[in-house]
Amino acid sequence: MLGLNLDCKLLLSTVIDHAAANYGDTEVVSCGRAETVRTNYRATAARARRLASALSHLGLGPGGFVGSLAWNTHRHFELFYGVSGCGGVLHTANPRLPPEQVLYAVNFTGYRTLFIDLDTVALAEQLAPGLETVSQFVVMAQRDAMPDTALPNVLCYEDLIDSGDPGYEWADLDERTACSLCFTSGTTGKPKGVLYSHRGNVLSALSSGGGNAWAVSADDAILGIPGFFHCNGWAVPFLAPMYGAKLVLPGRRADDEWLHRLIVDEGITVTAAVPTIFLGLLDHCRRTGQSLGRLQRVFSGGTAPPAEMIDAYLTEFGIRFSHGWGMTETTHGSTVSFAGRDLPRDAAVAAMRTQGKPLYGNQIRIVDDEDNALPHDGRTSGHLQCRGHWIAGAYFRQPEVDLQTPDGWMRTGDIATIDADNTLHIIDRAKDVIKSGGEWISSQALEEAATRHPAIREAAVVAMAHPRWQERPFLIAVTPDGAPVPHAELRDLLLRHVPKWWLPDCIAFVADLPHGPTGKLQKEAIRRQVAQGVIVPVSFAQGAVAPIAP
Amino acid sequence: MLGLNLDCKLLLSTVIDHAAANYGDTEVVSCGRAETVRTNYRATAARARRLASALSHLGLGPGGFVGSLAWNTHRHFELFYGVSGCGGVLHTANPRLPPEQVLYAVNFTGYRTLFIDLDTVALAEQLAPGLETVSQFVVMAQRDAMPDTALPNVLCYEDLIDSGDPGYEWADLDERTACSLCFTSGTTGKPKGVLYSHRGNVLSALSSGGGNAWAVSADDAILGIPGFFHCNGWAVPFLAPMYGAKLVLPGRRADDEWLHRLIVDEGITVTAAVPTIFLGLLDHCRRTGQSLGRLQRVFSGGTAPPAEMIDAYLTEFGIRFSHGWGMTETTHGSTVSFAGRDLPRDAAVAAMRTQGKPLYGNQIRIVDDEDNALPHDGRTSGHLQCRGHWIAGAYFRQPEVDLQTPDGWMRTGDIATIDADNTLHIIDRAKDVIKSGGEWISSQALEEAATRHPAIREAAVVAMAHPRWQERPFLIAVTPDGAPVPHAELRDLLLRHVPKWWLPDCIAFVADLPHGPTGKLQKEAIRRQVAQGVIVPVSFAQGAVAPIAP
Repeated sequence: MLGLNLDCKLLLSTVIDHAAANYGDTEVVSCGRAETVRTNYRATAARARRLASALSHLGLGPGGFVGSLAWNTHRHFELFYGVSGCGGVLHTANPRLPPEQVLYAVNFTGYRTLFIDLDTVALAEQLAPGLETVSQFVVMAQRDAMPDTALPNVLCYEDLIDSGDPGYEWADLDERTACSLCFTSGTTGKPKGVLYSHRGNVLSALSSGGGNAWAVSADDAILGIPGFFHCNGWAVPFLAPMYGAKLVLPGRRADDEWLHRLIVDEGITVTAAVPTIFLGLLDHCRRTGQSLGRLQRVFSGGTAPPAEMIDAYLTEFGIRFSHGWGMTETTHGSTVSFAGRDLPRDAAVAAMRTQGKPLYGNQIRIVDDEDNALPHDGRTSGHLQCRGHWIAGAYFRQPEVDLQTPDGWMRTGDIATIDADNTLHIIDRAKDVIKSGGEWISSQALEEAATRHPAIREAAVVAMAHPRWQERPFLIAVTPDGAPVPHAELRDLLLRHVPKWWLPDCIAFVADLPHGPTGKLQKEAIRRQVAQGVIVPVSFAQGAVAPIAP
Repeated sequence: MLGLNLDCKLLLSTVIDHAAANYGDTEVVSCGRAETVRTNYRATAARARRLASALSHLGLGPGGFVGSLAWNTHRHFELFYGVSGCGGVLHTANPRLPPEQVLYAVNFTGYRTLFIDLDTVALAEQLAPGLETVSQFVVMAQRDAMPDTALPNVLCYEDLIDSGDPGYEWADLDERTACSLCFTSGTTGKPKGVLYSHRGNVLSALSSGGGNAWAVSADDAILGIPGFFHCNGWAVPFLAPMYGAKLVLPGRRADDEWLHRLIVDEGITVTAAVPTIFLGLLDHCRRTGQSLGRLQRVFSGGTAPPAEMIDAYLTEFGIRFSHGWGMTETTHGSTVSFAGRDLPRDAAVAAMRTQGKPLYGNQIRIVDDEDNALPHDGRTSGHLQCRGHWIAGAYFRQPEVDLQTPDGWMRTGDIATIDADNTLHIIDRAKDVIKSGGEWISSQALEEAATRHPAIREAAVVAMAHPRWQERPFLIAVTPDGAPVPHAELRDLLLRHVPKWWLPDCIAFVADLPHGPTGKLQKEAIRRQVAQGVIVPVSFAQGAVAPIAP
């Protein structure tokens, strides 16, 4: 027997309509290359509606794709609603990826129309010869700013908007209809597509906006730093209008000075980014003696934020950190940390630094190699799996990839422990963890400890085969010119942060290490360099400097 | 084309499971007649699971009902999850209603098992002869506190729990499955049933918990004052566990001293109630010189809270008011007021006092008599209609009642204006508004203005037939012994709050007026008294005291 509620749907169109009706005057500030545009949710909804109309006239509808190769601007923001509003799917391609990865994703998806902006015209021109299906480029720019370009079949976005019907009715869709598509960055093998639904995005924005996570209200001003091509911009394009918060989009620039200026000038109260950005901002403020204006809360994800930084934000600026865990496959955040107001400073910083707890609508568990659930006791580590409305159950057109367990949980590829109160601690990627005598050693924890040495800028830990322990850690440290650090000094430092049996068996000092397009260390490439003898291990902790065979 | 997310459901079982997994140690404090029980979400989930198992063994499942006639305690709280967890529907009957209304609702629904508590045994005994289908009573009490009672077939709730399987798996249901049932208080005609769904309750709790409404987090402690039989306890049984807030349930007592003690002793940060409760609490604090502890936010609904009270909470205690609008047919809140932190005091109080804006997931509009939409301009008044996931589309087993418009909006029976920013102002119930020469006069606004006179304890305004204006207002004022107030004095007072053309044409002073079971004035009974000559109108504003024919 069903309840007798009205039948309504969790569609993205309801989010922008809600914002237009209730927070119509609330500002959307967009900082593109040549212009800063101040618009609002009423205008955004109206333009998205015309866009949806124009796109449906061009043949877009349920099952159809268009792509974007663009930075965070008001037009890109409209595009989410315009495309999904006629039933189409927006593939947000990442302009920071190597051209071959962008080409792969666009060609794999296969669509006709690519939306670009003034800052990506050159990239589009470079890609054009390799684009197999794209035959139309829409430049998201003012009419009088349209570029001279060799691209074929170029439309001005504003002309497209103008051609749309302002009275267009949003497509009436199943709420599970696909609305957006991102690809993993493909550090191992080809990028994989994740196809998101209206329902998943709406529920995740609603839940992420709540008090244990973003705690967003109409009193807030959000700076949307994460690119819309990263996990749907970390939900910002949906939760800001849903909760009526002012939305500021920084365009292409992401340097400290620019972000700082926007935070102060636009009265930003909350923002989100990878820890590197917050380190840079902190550094900028200390260097220039400036404040962070009205900023109250920041969210980090990607890699673990240093405790010192969290503490500095809290004590120097009164800004509270939340750290979350998510991946392309989880739409955006799955878990987020929350430090109670009554916690003493040290405990608060420690709580903020964990990966936190699942948002309502998500669940987490750890399992052994045979998918048997392991205890949440803060000690046992296992393969992290998660489950929820906005968690992927399969990859886009790659049914052969085994993403889901038979009982409906997603395999994340991460190794973690979970506390009794369900607080998540990510230990490592499963493929990077060192399996030593049946126990696991976290390469990430070792790398983090090593980089606390002032001379070590970056570190990578990879597994070395070992006759007795199966695998043992090999630490590769980046120092100026690859100059070695005294082993005893490093040993003392490491022992302050990791158990003795985690100490690496061997070490190498190098001047540089290979990085992927999103700045992550490429461990596969590092392992190849080790195998090829480009990086040579020497014995650690014995004081010996003789090379060891890998 | 659907997105590739995992398929998860918005069921109430996921709410209590979320609380148990993430906030298992968070307290649930229950204040029954003889005992104060301190339990937590982990135990609540475990007991609800056993209860669901026991109930399913008793034959309860999808399509089946049980009833409760009880106050807000931890067992009643468990009951929501235990009943819905096996697919059943909980009818929360209101012990404050007249026996014939309770009997009507229970018999109309027709079920076998009624859950009562120690404070409702006597009422159940009184009702028993009239109960047509109930043949089993479960007393929600400790085993050693079981009452001597003449009721047949009495079970102890704790025995039922003990008989359940702790490993029971929650029923796997369509998320639109019914989970709870409340009846309107039936001020006009028979009570009408509203059958709520899992999905509606989950979405409303998720949205109501967000930053523009309750702004609840794991840092909060909520005092659940509204009876679970009123609009599902105003979402408290769902939003508290969903957001991991401590939950305090006050049992039967609702006097100022008791509520004040709980607020202070339990560190309550947020609560909700009708304005009368908050007036009493304020009075209590002023009289005794006590603070309100950690209380930060309060939510009111039912009737408009006086501006003076909102101001007093804000300035004397730093407590922020939100006022909302909802009815039995809207599950709980549909709209809620929100005052920005930067608003000056007067503007903040004015904003807090409105009915606010729709929560995400709800929409509001006003229409004329032919359902044509009217402008949201803050001036035009019309019939309020709303729409959303937790809004009723029909009454329970009364398909003949015309609740829904052809385009899927619910007729609320209220008259309202809506500002350009979608802020709702309820003017009156449609059946109470005075239709004067094509314009509407709010009986509620006149009543509120009249009760500002120190001698007028209560007031009712009803329509009098008028040869030229169709209807004109008749003000009936309750004063000590029905002693008259000088007309000129009252006229001056009214003119400070309403337009001149709203001034009542006639007036009567009485010692008392008839009230319904929930304390509301019974306007139908008042109109009958006027028609029968029990209340005699005299001309107002002319100074004349001669009776006027109705």
